[in-house]
Amino acid sequence: MNYPNQIKKVYHKNTNYANRGMDLEGIINEANQYYLDNDLALIYKKPTPIGIVKVNYENNKQRITDAYFATQSTLDYNGLYKGKYIEFDAKNTESKTSFPINNVHEHQILHIRRVIRHGGIVFLIIRINGLIYLLNGPVFIQFIDTNTRKSIPYSFIEENGYLIEYNYNRGLDYLKIVDLIGGFKNEED
Amino acid sequence: MNYPNQIKKVYHKNTNYANRGMDLEGIINEANQYYLDNDLALIYKKPTPIGIVKVNYENNKQRITDAYFATQSTLDYNGLYKGKYIEFDAKNTESKTSFPINNVHEHQILHIRRVIRHGGIVFLIIRINGLIYLLNGPVFIQFIDTNTRKSIPYSFIEENGYLIEYNYNRGLDYLKIVDLIGGFKNEED
Repeated sequence: MNYPNQIKKVYHKNTNYANRGMDLEGIINEANQYYLDNDLALIYKKPTPIGIVKVNYENNKQRITDAYFATQSTLDYNGLYKGKYIEFDAKNTESKTSFPINNVHEHQILHIRRVIRHGGIVFLIIRINGLIYLLNGPVFIQFIDTNTRKSIPYSFIEENGYLIEYNYNRGLDYLKIVDLIGGFKNEED
Repeated sequence: MNYPNQIKKVYHKNTNYANRGMDLEGIINEANQYYLDNDLALIYKKPTPIGIVKVNYENNKQRITDAYFATQSTLDYNGLYKGKYIEFDAKNTESKTSFPINNVHEHQILHIRRVIRHGGIVFLIIRINGLIYLLNGPVFIQFIDTNTRKSIPYSFIEENGYLIEYNYNRGLDYLKIVDLIGGFKNEED
């Protein structure tokens, strides 16, 4: 897949979120709050699934006294944007040269395939080399299906992903990219 | 809103789920599993949000030792069906004559309005009088906005909701109703 260079150049500006010391989840939550406050989209992080072992009652209130963190079988974020179903996950990688595919669990890969099949917009937001990219689900799946590699080279992400612009008002404005991949706008606009 | 009587009569058949002693959540989870297994839709219950107070480490594993149940600011179930965003909540009522509106929290009502505005399909599944109805979000909101009553009479739900068919294979086949309200099928079909 090739996208016009012009777009990439635009998105290279103002990517100074790394300086602010926020973690990726915090940056995305901030963007989602901006989208909600401005009635642009409804996107939420799903609660972390918890396996509850023991609940006590104190003053007629339930109190969990033994529980563990379970794993999400889907992706962490989903919601609604311009009438379309959106789902994505946020992934950090320490490596500067590649994104290890095992950062995405088997059941999450299966889920990405399903969302594509059912007509949803699905993608990964990947932080690598201090920059944040959006890698569209179909591109990610195509890589897996046509490669035996255990990681995606940084150059592939640079070429086939979209660097996400940092906007002083909106924070990480990933919906600008969704406008492109979701077919809301012509890429040449 | 008026829907053809013919449809209602069809959906009155085989509504014997009440005999099986399952709770509403169990019935819906079973339906969602059927939809997932048969690749018809991707609909999940969101994890219950938990406020974590204390986490201990035991054998390098995290163990939650103090936490409480928080409230969901959205609806409990969401997902993707035929390319469309779906969200709903399941509500039980003990009353046989009406559905108390305060069963739906203020922030959930706000969220229903937002989902409608952004083009999603949103509804309530209401168990009343041993029967299970689907009440479309816009109908629910219209009732709230045009009534001062604190509960929705059963007769209103009977007339403006859809009784959901129980199918021996699929369980509670609520997507059949979504096909009608979501504009996938002509109501006269």
